[in-house]
Amino acid sequence: MLIINSILEMKALVKDIRQKGKTVGFVPTMGYLHEGHLTLMREAKKKTEFVVTSIFVNPLQFGVGEDYEEYPRDITRDSCMAREVGVDAVFAPTIREMYPNGYATFVEVEKLTDKLCGKSRPGHFRGVTTVVAKLFNIVQPDIAFFGQKDAQQAAVLQQMAADLNMNLAIEVVPTVREVDGLAMSSRNTYLSREERKAALVLSESLKAAGKLFASGERSPGVLKDKITGMINREPLARIDYVEVCTLPGLEETERLEGQNLIALAVFIGSIRLIDNLIVEG
Amino acid sequence: MLIINSILEMKALVKDIRQKGKTVGFVPTMGYLHEGHLTLMREAKKKTEFVVTSIFVNPLQFGVGEDYEEYPRDITRDSCMAREVGVDAVFAPTIREMYPNGYATFVEVEKLTDKLCGKSRPGHFRGVTTVVAKLFNIVQPDIAFFGQKDAQQAAVLQQMAADLNMNLAIEVVPTVREVDGLAMSSRNTYLSREERKAALVLSESLKAAGKLFASGERSPGVLKDKITGMINREPLARIDYVEVCTLPGLEETERLEGQNLIALAVFIGSIRLIDNLIVEG
Repeated sequence: MLIINSILEMKALVKDIRQKGKTVGFVPTMGYLHEGHLTLMREAKKKTEFVVTSIFVNPLQFGVGEDYEEYPRDITRDSCMAREVGVDAVFAPTIREMYPNGYATFVEVEKLTDKLCGKSRPGHFRGVTTVVAKLFNIVQPDIAFFGQKDAQQAAVLQQMAADLNMNLAIEVVPTVREVDGLAMSSRNTYLSREERKAALVLSESLKAAGKLFASGERSPGVLKDKITGMINREPLARIDYVEVCTLPGLEETERLEGQNLIALAVFIGSIRLIDNLIVEG
Repeated sequence: MLIINSILEMKALVKDIRQKGKTVGFVPTMGYLHEGHLTLMREAKKKTEFVVTSIFVNPLQFGVGEDYEEYPRDITRDSCMAREVGVDAVFAPTIREMYPNGYATFVEVEKLTDKLCGKSRPGHFRGVTTVVAKLFNIVQPDIAFFGQKDAQQAAVLQQMAADLNMNLAIEVVPTVREVDGLAMSSRNTYLSREERKAALVLSESLKAAGKLFASGERSPGVLKDKITGMINREPLARIDYVEVCTLPGLEETERLEGQNLIALAVFIGSIRLIDNLIVEG
């Protein structure tokens, strides 16, 4: 497996691979890999012939007071894990390489980014779309893989790729969970033992809402109340948002028809976690 | 010569051309072609093996009260002229094809776009960078060609391409002028006979400033005063801006060293024209 730090080298490698007629799969990450990332990489291995993963903690998508500095980093561990699932190249650029002095260009998706996490984290998605647009130009994949856990991110990136006529497909892969249901996240490593237990309220309240939906409930308000009630009973949890909306438009809805997203962000202690459930009916 | 209206068809054509190992040159235009555009196309013919030109009057780069509706259009005339200089394909998409319902993604270059034309035309460069990013993804050129007449546009697009790691080169081609010195522009067709004469003050004041520079003058203020004085003596002319700045940074400067740009925008009657001169010393 190759480890590449330079943009020019990455471009040269991909050019060579494409000239050999191979398809390229791409899994962008911020590192500190977990089973969720590895599932994306395995999916990429299945569907493409050369798999690149990037490891880059993107300062542009962190707000003031967020955890950019503390975000866990371990490139040795990450490279080892990527190699084991058959990744062909890890792209790990420096910040200076990605954002040289005088850097001034930003990609912005409107509307979709005003809601859910976009409301609580202003500028976050602008950072995501900008870095992903750059990475797409560097790696030039046929298919890029993203996790359903970041449902809004996936919707925003699909809108960006379609609007800017990018030459790739975006695949969204179901959320991978711990045995007890907690959605995998690099931020789970921040949780104390007590918080780890409390964090279960995210997946469990979603599961309860899913059961209500399965039993015929179609009112977004009733589902939201169910979730809010459960989370409010957990002393370590504080709701950032609980939303029920259409997918991929992320619009409010009066009654659940077609594909909808139940999404939530909850602080467990000081750690902000997200999870979601797609319901279809 | 092919005339293509659909994005998918354009992408399929370019894919085919690239698979044949040919290089692609690209000249984006808003149509109503003149010798300036044709010079870009001839340059593209020299440097690449398959030349695409796009004709698209981009609503996103026109401000409220600007001349989007009146902008001259004549696709039959344009196609004929493009064919004559050996263009291989004209890409002429509809507005709905480029900006479908729900369109929401924008590319923005900061700093460079606050100055010169960016100051007088807020949102203009955001429209330019967005449409050009889209066109680059559709046409996937090896080299894209732009005119020096739009000096700030060229600087902004070079910054965008570098910042977003786009896989192409941008070439800037010297301004083409009428025999008497007026810079070629589709907007020249708006000028009455009297205004056409008055419009000469743009190129002539730049020429006078260039002479001062050649004779050793290095004060931006002195050059600006020379130009401003000449334009103010022309009754049909009204200055939008006259600026002397560094290139490509477009920063103000106390003393002319290295490469600098003398740029101006002047209303002749109600028609806004631009021109510029690069000085190097």
